[in-house]
Amino acid sequence: MTQAALYVGDRTFTVEERPAVPPGPGEVRIAVAYTGICGTDLHVLHGAMDHRVSVPAVIGHEMAGRVAELGAGVTGWRVGDAVTVMPLAWCGRCPACRAGNQHVCHRLTFIGVDSPGAMQGSWTVPAETLVGLPEGMSLRHGALIEPTAVAVHDVRRSRLAAGEHAVVIGAGPVGLLIACVARSVGAAVVLVELDPHRRDVAAKLGFTVVDPATTDPADFVDGWTGGAGAAVVFEVSGSAGGVRTATGLLAVRGRLVVVGIHPVPREVDLHRVFWRELEIVGARVYRRDDFTEAVRLLAAGEAPAADLISAVVPLSDVAGAFDALERGGVVKILIDCGGGR
Amino acid sequence: MTQAALYVGDRTFTVEERPAVPPGPGEVRIAVAYTGICGTDLHVLHGAMDHRVSVPAVIGHEMAGRVAELGAGVTGWRVGDAVTVMPLAWCGRCPACRAGNQHVCHRLTFIGVDSPGAMQGSWTVPAETLVGLPEGMSLRHGALIEPTAVAVHDVRRSRLAAGEHAVVIGAGPVGLLIACVARSVGAAVVLVELDPHRRDVAAKLGFTVVDPATTDPADFVDGWTGGAGAAVVFEVSGSAGGVRTATGLLAVRGRLVVVGIHPVPREVDLHRVFWRELEIVGARVYRRDDFTEAVRLLAAGEAPAADLISAVVPLSDVAGAFDALERGGVVKILIDCGGGR
Ligand SMILES: [Zn+2]
Ligand SMILES: [Zn+2]
Ligand SMILES: [Zn+2]
Ligand SMILES: [Zn+2]
Repeated sequence: MTQAALYVGDRTFTVEERPAVPPGPGEVRIAVAYTGICGTDLHVLHGAMDHRVSVPAVIGHEMAGRVAELGAGVTGWRVGDAVTVMPLAWCGRCPACRAGNQHVCHRLTFIGVDSPGAMQGSWTVPAETLVGLPEGMSLRHGALIEPTAVAVHDVRRSRLAAGEHAVVIGAGPVGLLIACVARSVGAAVVLVELDPHRRDVAAKLGFTVVDPATTDPADFVDGWTGGAGAAVVFEVSGSAGGVRTATGLLAVRGRLVVVGIHPVPREVDLHRVFWRELEIVGARVYRRDDFTEAVRLLAAGEAPAADLISAVVPLSDVAGAFDALERGGVVKILIDCGGGR
Repeated sequence: MTQAALYVGDRTFTVEERPAVPPGPGEVRIAVAYTGICGTDLHVLHGAMDHRVSVPAVIGHEMAGRVAELGAGVTGWRVGDAVTVMPLAWCGRCPACRAGNQHVCHRLTFIGVDSPGAMQGSWTVPAETLVGLPEGMSLRHGALIEPTAVAVHDVRRSRLAAGEHAVVIGAGPVGLLIACVARSVGAAVVLVELDPHRRDVAAKLGFTVVDPATTDPADFVDGWTGGAGAAVVFEVSGSAGGVRTATGLLAVRGRLVVVGIHPVPREVDLHRVFWRELEIVGARVYRRDDFTEAVRLLAAGEAPAADLISAVVPLSDVAGAFDALERGGVVKILIDCGGGR
């Protein structure tokens, strides 16, 4: 038996004891130590993903734990190995898969949304989703590898280089991790954020943060870059205003990375895109090499995991954890799922 | 003395005899053979560029002719050399120039709009703007090198490769030239165009053309690409509908090149940009290597100049030439400026 947090619809979680799912051929059962709560999980709670989630559902996809049981035919892993999971399942046959872009497969499913997730003590997944953690890495920190891989992917898509200026619009967990990864490649980084709590966290991580309510980001970037503009802007806010600000900050041939989710089309200054030869680049989830780099960054302390974990709460209090995240003023909350120690 | 077409404001041209401008140090006087009329020139006629043009103004920038007179210190050119002009002047000191992107200089001026142009028998320009034409190239064809360089630049910015599928939205002169250049790199090319005259011209050049009033371009591209979508879409129409169509046609990691001028911000489906990891790429004017390639393509017949020239009219009938262009049903009209033969 294993404890599981169940999303049952109507903004409600229950916690239940359920039988652990034995691993089938090619699968691995993981004893889950910690699972982080992500913006996607909040969207599920708000009912925004009800078309993809069949209730009652175990959600969650940012985790670390240890291999507990191997299904038939699984090689390369041993019981006790510390792991995280790259929670993607692709079809292997569509044009995107055949072109080597499995992570944006036309029929991609996301484990933890479209299929059961990690907010439970025991989680069974395909062996090919496993990513090994180095010995000595805290499993709490390991739960941050998935969101760090998102940030690594975003920075890779931007082609950000050492010495360039980068702006991150939105200082939530993804924005902060992008800022950390951007700093790790040697770029100068500034965040733009309206929320004072989030500005505090960013400042504690050593970043300059602009409050757009009191400082015009365009003026700031103009002074900061000697009139050139930023080489890269990451739009993480998902807002119309963020998009409007973003194009105005970019240097000639600058790159705007679309990270945030924009539910409706946004007005974009295509004249400036033309005039300055800008690029607008979409970035979605990650590839395996992004996980490899995320593991390296966390192990090297370049993504300061300890500073990003605001609280660790027991699985029995999953509802309270979502409440705390909605109230704000926190970065990442981990759920202690009880396994893997 | 030289004959010149003068834009005097209020949708009006006059033709006058004026003294030829002697070349100063570093300048060259060209005897202009032919000057093409471009969309930009039409904008001038419509008064849309009155903030940049000081009347009376000689406009025009798509030309070919022969070197007539060398200013002090000019080397590398001889009287009689067949030439065209890359009509850009940059500052050399701004961040864009210092980064090697002189063609999008923060203080770029466009010769023929911001300074006197080529609709005259004798045109004096800086020697560094000259581009030599190969012996044997018709000067009529040479007048198409500048717009072909635009198309070369657009295709280069798209990173279009042999075997890929490309869609061109808008089959005016620029769209047709982009289609020719895209075909020359080995891509499969389709145009989308509402106007039946333009569809006819595109079809005569051997292209498949979709009429969006009767065929949904997304359905067409879906079938054409086996469900993958197009690798590249060139948005040449400058319309809100063109942008909307464009994002819907692209394959995973496809590139949308913004060629058309969008005077106001456009709604862009940024969710699809994210979901398919699309890129939106601005492309403005050209660099010298784009001219080099344009010369090669025209010399090799890969841009079929003869098929694109609808009429050649004397300078005295410049007003009639603009009228014909506005009526439509023509691709490129050349003004015979009388020089260089
Ligand atoms: Zn997540
Ligand atoms: Zn697939
Ligand atoms: Zn032109
Ligand atoms: Zn400059």
